Amino acid sequence: MRLVCWRCGFQTEYRPGLYTCESCGEPLLVDGDFRESLRREGTLIPQELRTVTLGEGKTPLIKSREGIYLKLEYLNPTGSFKDRGAATAVSEALCRGCKLIIEDSSGNAGISYSAYAGRAGIRARIYVPYDAPPGKKNMLRALGAEVVEAPTRDEAARLAVNDQEGCYVGHRINPYFLEGMKDLPLELVKELDDVDYVVSPLASGTLLIGLWKGYRELVEVGMVKHVPKLVAVQACGYESLAKYYKPYMSVCRSKAQLPDGIRLTDAPRLQHMAEILRESEGLYVVVDDELVLPYLRELWREGVVAEPTSAYGYAVARELVKDGSISGRIVVILTGNGIKHVSGGMIL
Amino acid sequence: MRLVCWRCGFQTEYRPGLYTCESCGEPLLVDGDFRESLRREGTLIPQELRTVTLGEGKTPLIKSREGIYLKLEYLNPTGSFKDRGAATAVSEALCRGCKLIIEDSSGNAGISYSAYAGRAGIRARIYVPYDAPPGKKNMLRALGAEVVEAPTRDEAARLAVNDQEGCYVGHRINPYFLEGMKDLPLELVKELDDVDYVVSPLASGTLLIGLWKGYRELVEVGMVKHVPKLVAVQACGYESLAKYYKPYMSVCRSKAQLPDGIRLTDAPRLQHMAEILRESEGLYVVVDDELVLPYLRELWREGVVAEPTSAYGYAVARELVKDGSISGRIVVILTGNGIKHVSGGMIL
Repeated sequence: MRLVCWRCGFQTEYRPGLYTCESCGEPLLVDGDFRESLRREGTLIPQELRTVTLGEGKTPLIKSREGIYLKLEYLNPTGSFKDRGAATAVSEALCRGCKLIIEDSSGNAGISYSAYAGRAGIRARIYVPYDAPPGKKNMLRALGAEVVEAPTRDEAARLAVNDQEGCYVGHRINPYFLEGMKDLPLELVKELDDVDYVVSPLASGTLLIGLWKGYRELVEVGMVKHVPKLVAVQACGYESLAKYYKPYMSVCRSKAQLPDGIRLTDAPRLQHMAEILRESEGLYVVVDDELVLPYLRELWREGVVAEPTSAYGYAVARELVKDGSISGRIVVILTGNGIKHVSGGMIL
Repeated sequence: MRLVCWRCGFQTEYRPGLYTCESCGEPLLVDGDFRESLRREGTLIPQELRTVTLGEGKTPLIKSREGIYLKLEYLNPTGSFKDRGAATAVSEALCRGCKLIIEDSSGNAGISYSAYAGRAGIRARIYVPYDAPPGKKNMLRALGAEVVEAPTRDEAARLAVNDQEGCYVGHRINPYFLEGMKDLPLELVKELDDVDYVVSPLASGTLLIGLWKGYRELVEVGMVKHVPKLVAVQACGYESLAKYYKPYMSVCRSKAQLPDGIRLTDAPRLQHMAEILRESEGLYVVVDDELVLPYLRELWREGVVAEPTSAYGYAVARELVKDGSISGRIVVILTGNGIKHVSGGMIL
């Protein structure tokens, strides 16, 4: 297993704890022998990163009444696509002897990391802003994580990075977390020929970059002709990608409240995300709660219990189909489970 | 597709709306051509019952640190094994032209039915006791169901059965609901040779009878040698099966509060359940919250986010292994997702 920098071309053999490029500072990517893994075991994920599992992946793909394919990533073990990345990142942490992993998050990533640390028999310490949703803090504690509250989200990140007691596994820069996403496109390719568009919400970009990396490897082995056009969706007030890529459409009347998974103002891999959209001839779209809410309701009325963040992707797919911007075979990745939102009192 | 009565031998061709035996009153079973379905499409479920789907089934099987296999039924589309039954029961209701289905429930069955009705484009009316958990009523409404509150659980059942406006689909007597469970043993047989024990919580018995029926059909086609020993678990204060079958073990110090899925005092198919336990040389065990709670915590600390009802099965498996009562290959069915309990404030 090697590590490479997409930006400056830096390369190195795997080194425990090295996440960012020693030459330009960009978060690295794994360069593993996916041909061998695929041939022998039907996965693109390197063998070293598959020691810890809770049954993630192989999520259902169903077709909505409107003809859009829905990949139900909310049916992963703790309710989000992040489980794929936590499985591989915790496998790597376990391999290099970590007894305590450290992450900053109050959402799905922290919950995934806590569950997989528990599964691996090691400890997890999660730094969260003090005003994180109580339901999510309950989940972290029930999963056995040590929860440390910080005054702000940014301060939680700073404290986590500087905590020297354990292994920092921050999913936004961790190359091994990203690697776990690659079987998602593999599953899509097996179930569906010739996908034209894949639509997903965008924050730290692990899903977008993971999709792209998986598809690129599938192109290399000849299982698919080209990477589908990727459509990245952000929420009004949190358009971090706009610095690097021009929105194809923007409907932004008020700052988003609903999609807790993408209410982030920055991410380390933004330049790479923009590059990937350019390469795939993809689209970047910004929308707001007002546009999305009826589509969230539409999903639930069809029995699809996705979280608000996921509805951002679905809403954009429906709108772009309606106005003729996209057509053909369209897959929306439904990233997280909405049961906790609705059980907790959200009215749809 | 035919209907048969296990008790008196009554048989008839499929007739829309007929659930119970015209001769002795027992809820009927489906007698379909499972050999043909299995050969052609790899499922034991009759083709007529497979028109509506939300991606249920094919749930992960993982091995716990203690060596017990866990079948993660909580990763079904709405978070419980009931989705398998709702898929087939709603398919049947749709086939016979129902525009409105009626059920009494405040828990997982009502949520499943509401989701699958929405998926099928028909309406659902769910009768619930007024004191049903608010989080579950929120979910029913978000899924588009009409929620009718009754003074008690029994009164909810009475009102539902007598509602003549739609099709009553009550899962406790519905033969088509039960039929949906059969691919669970098929999945187990494909993943694991020679299972010795299958342990599950017991209330209305759809899971136990569905497991038995699926295994019996797999024995008939030669895919497995015999039905594993089935272990049924009930909660202290709700030992409805004790009328018909002697508990192998009973640890009952106070009335159970935790397992909302099995807090029922009666069920229509109890005699059949007892007969199945006898036939499989199975065990019936009654335990209480005090015994179960540490095992619920143990599951979560391993990243397994099961609901309290499911932990009843796991706790009994662990106890029976410890005292030497059972050994070999043991599968516990984890029936429901605990995220909503913990997000909603339950402390583990």
